[in-house]
Amino acid sequence: MQIDLNCDMGESFGHWSMGHDEGMMRFISSANVAGGFHAGDPTTLRKTVALAKEHGVAVGVHSGYRDLVGFGRREINASPEEIRDELIYQLGAVREFCRLYDVPLQHVKPHGALYMAAARDEDLSRAIIEAIQGLDPGLHLFCMEGSVTYRLGKEMGQSVVAEFFADRAYNDEGQIVFTRAVTERLDPEEVGERVVRAITEGKVTAESGRDVPVASDSVCVHGDTPGAVGLAEAIVEKLRESSIEVRPLGRAGQTV
Amino acid sequence: MQIDLNCDMGESFGHWSMGHDEGMMRFISSANVAGGFHAGDPTTLRKTVALAKEHGVAVGVHSGYRDLVGFGRREINASPEEIRDELIYQLGAVREFCRLYDVPLQHVKPHGALYMAAARDEDLSRAIIEAIQGLDPGLHLFCMEGSVTYRLGKEMGQSVVAEFFADRAYNDEGQIVFTRAVTERLDPEEVGERVVRAITEGKVTAESGRDVPVASDSVCVHGDTPGAVGLAEAIVEKLRESSIEVRPLGRAGQTV
Amino acid sequence: MQIDLNCDMGESFGHWSMGHDEGMMRFISSANVAGGFHAGDPTTLRKTVALAKEHGVAVGVHSGYRDLVGFGRREINASPEEIRDELIYQLGAVREFCRLYDVPLQHVKPHGALYMAAARDEDLSRAIIEAIQGLDPGLHLFCMEGSVTYRLGKEMGQSVVAEFFADRAYNDEGQIVFTRAVTERLDPEEVGERVVRAITEGKVTAESGRDVPVASDSVCVHGDTPGAVGLAEAIVEKLRESSIEVRPLGRAGQTV
Amino acid sequence: MQIDLNCDMGESFGHWSMGHDEGMMRFISSANVAGGFHAGDPTTLRKTVALAKEHGVAVGVHSGYRDLVGFGRREINASPEEIRDELIYQLGAVREFCRLYDVPLQHVKPHGALYMAAARDEDLSRAIIEAIQGLDPGLHLFCMEGSVTYRLGKEMGQSVVAEFFADRAYNDEGQIVFTRAVTERLDPEEVGERVVRAITEGKVTAESGRDVPVASDSVCVHGDTPGAVGLAEAIVEKLRESSIEVRPLGRAGQTV
Repeated sequence: MQIDLNCDMGESFGHWSMGHDEGMMRFISSANVAGGFHAGDPTTLRKTVALAKEHGVAVGVHSGYRDLVGFGRREINASPEEIRDELIYQLGAVREFCRLYDVPLQHVKPHGALYMAAARDEDLSRAIIEAIQGLDPGLHLFCMEGSVTYRLGKEMGQSVVAEFFADRAYNDEGQIVFTRAVTERLDPEEVGERVVRAITEGKVTAESGRDVPVASDSVCVHGDTPGAVGLAEAIVEKLRESSIEVRPLGRAGQTV
Repeated sequence: MQIDLNCDMGESFGHWSMGHDEGMMRFISSANVAGGFHAGDPTTLRKTVALAKEHGVAVGVHSGYRDLVGFGRREINASPEEIRDELIYQLGAVREFCRLYDVPLQHVKPHGALYMAAARDEDLSRAIIEAIQGLDPGLHLFCMEGSVTYRLGKEMGQSVVAEFFADRAYNDEGQIVFTRAVTERLDPEEVGERVVRAITEGKVTAESGRDVPVASDSVCVHGDTPGAVGLAEAIVEKLRESSIEVRPLGRAGQTV
Repeated sequence: MQIDLNCDMGESFGHWSMGHDEGMMRFISSANVAGGFHAGDPTTLRKTVALAKEHGVAVGVHSGYRDLVGFGRREINASPEEIRDELIYQLGAVREFCRLYDVPLQHVKPHGALYMAAARDEDLSRAIIEAIQGLDPGLHLFCMEGSVTYRLGKEMGQSVVAEFFADRAYNDEGQIVFTRAVTERLDPEEVGERVVRAITEGKVTAESGRDVPVASDSVCVHGDTPGAVGLAEAIVEKLRESSIEVRPLGRAGQTV
Repeated sequence: MQIDLNCDMGESFGHWSMGHDEGMMRFISSANVAGGFHAGDPTTLRKTVALAKEHGVAVGVHSGYRDLVGFGRREINASPEEIRDELIYQLGAVREFCRLYDVPLQHVKPHGALYMAAARDEDLSRAIIEAIQGLDPGLHLFCMEGSVTYRLGKEMGQSVVAEFFADRAYNDEGQIVFTRAVTERLDPEEVGERVVRAITEGKVTAESGRDVPVASDSVCVHGDTPGAVGLAEAIVEKLRESSIEVRPLGRAGQTV
């Protein structure tokens, strides 16, 4: 068995730093590189892509709302056309750094509030999927299994990758409980076991205590969760114990 | 004979509009599309690339300092590394819109104060040239003949395109007199004749009244010069009278 | 009889210009000066306050979402705390230019999508009213009569000024039909008569053709409506014919 | 004896945090609160002013270039008029939060590259001084003793406060060696002794090993210097041992 482990990366901005990119790169297989709108200045993007290459980690674009002060975690009532064009813009920027280091672009992952808005909104999801299909059919789109994005992607022939969130609570509908930031410190052991169970059994225990089904084409761990590197390490360790290999997805429609 | 006629394009931002892109596209052969840092939001970029394609106009990236309020016309003491990364970022963004419309990216033109800073600064020019060469040897670099950028580009085997500025005053050294914006209304007839003379005789009359030699691999007319469309039309008319065809450069190292 | 006539002002940004501030100042009595978040750079703010003083026009702050590219016309899911702090920030900035020119600050008017969001949202309206009351009880708050902002302001003892929108369509509930921008050209004569009727009869004809009651403590005309200066002139002319004097509100709780 | 101890504060931005404001507030007497252009969102500004009040720390505005990505540490070729207006804007914003908490505004301190540019540039210094004098003669202006700002301030009757930098190297001209950020860890004991010597003897040892005269109307310690809180604590301890009291300056022209 194998699984992709992804993490948001390149979310520093100028003199402000965020996350633990060097630490996380040692454990993950896919990096969601901030496209510059919610986080990530060009030099940070370049260094993040270089770091990903160094660790054999695949690169995707993490495109967010144009909202530095809100870190892309506040919904903006932008039109689908605006979102599509902002996605293309950010995707191109990240892809150019990939070109510089001769790394293929693997996936697209909307960030934060945009991810959640698209999950509910058909027009927004369609705009995102059409942009990807118009540009590059080899790109995967990361989303949640029960979302509008996932369903529409399937209908439109888009490669959709259902994420399991290692460090987020789930509700009874199998949806994550959205939060601007996780502040409590999670137990690495538990998180690791949760991930293995999601992969092997397709289940997670919701906040209510009930077991709910979850898909997990890729497992996401957030770099700004307290103790993120320890969580990633514990996840990888638990996966190893269960003989599950961590490796990137590769380009859509291709075998890695 | 033939000549490339270029103009800065896509410099609107959100609800603010700038220039006369639709009018200018009818006359020019190369569009310098703002990369979003000094001007140009993603939707504007997309529409500008689409408009260029519609008119058979070639597309380049017009990358400026990250300075919306100053429109990229104030020098920023950024490091060559920052400038290089900002250029790659903007280039990628514009290139992705080109990919959407299946248009090749033709050239790079630093904008405003960055263009002038690079013209004087070897480290900055080297950073720009290295970025281009690391990404895509088929791109031309627009600059001024007497500049450090031009000289260094020649030394480094970069295709450099010496611009003649139709709507800017020249000094006795053959350099343009930098200004944040032209406000006076120029005579279209005179501007047209000036351009033809620059191309056919390689000369321009400086502010002092003296004739100075100028190169003109491409002729630039600014979209925010008062009466810009009329100037472009007059230039094209004068060129036609002199049997000089307006056409893009094509990709470097290739015959169009 | 007398009426206050207000207009959004200072919405240029750097090299991008917006509106017809010089033209409008000749007719209005209150200027809503952009606070810099949706529009308005510091130099524009200063010049706008100076221009207002020159014309005897009162000054208020027009505070918007931090969203230059969307011109504050896209709702952002910001917390009431964020909005309150952004309002205080922008209010202080405008007030300092007032101090420079020895002009009192007269009012607060949320801009665009923030104005509409507050009109529906009690927490947001409360945050805005509390900010004003914590800073300066002499400030009026501009809003719409039927809005949550208006009702809550009344309850909290805040001076609320109900606006009539000269250049916007009304629905049967007496609410304006929100639009990102008016693009059609309105008939100045009709607009002027509409304003006089709103003031003298308290009625406007809705899109449906029905007459609906409207309040009009102040009349708003937008500077980016096509032909805005002509509309303002026609309004003032019609008011003059009806012996209604255009004059500012003065500070709350004081007689001008 | 007494001395003012100042520190840059409020330099977080949205989800990005910077400095150790809570830790530093316990030791300093004056806070230079970021005005939002190089750092500091409105909520951060408000909390910083509240925190200063809680600790009896005086508040000044720390106004920087409009350059988030460069953290105000890159010189921008802005006109003195632009700088003056940006200063007024930021000053007003900070002053409004002071009004909210009933705290007087004590001083103005240009930030980073603007501080250094003004130190060399007469037009820039004059623009800053004129802005302060036009707004509020009770404000002190922080600068360096040998600078153009200091000399011109004295000539123009402005209260200028010469800073001694506890955590920066000095050259033989008594000027600090400008750096974008200090990365090495300084010895708190040595820094504390350096400060006491600067105050009591008016001397500092330059990088060359020579003693050079320095003024110290206020001592600055930077919050982003590694180990900043420990440095501040050591400085205060050494001052206490020398019976030098740490207290704010108060408003210019008044006795505290």
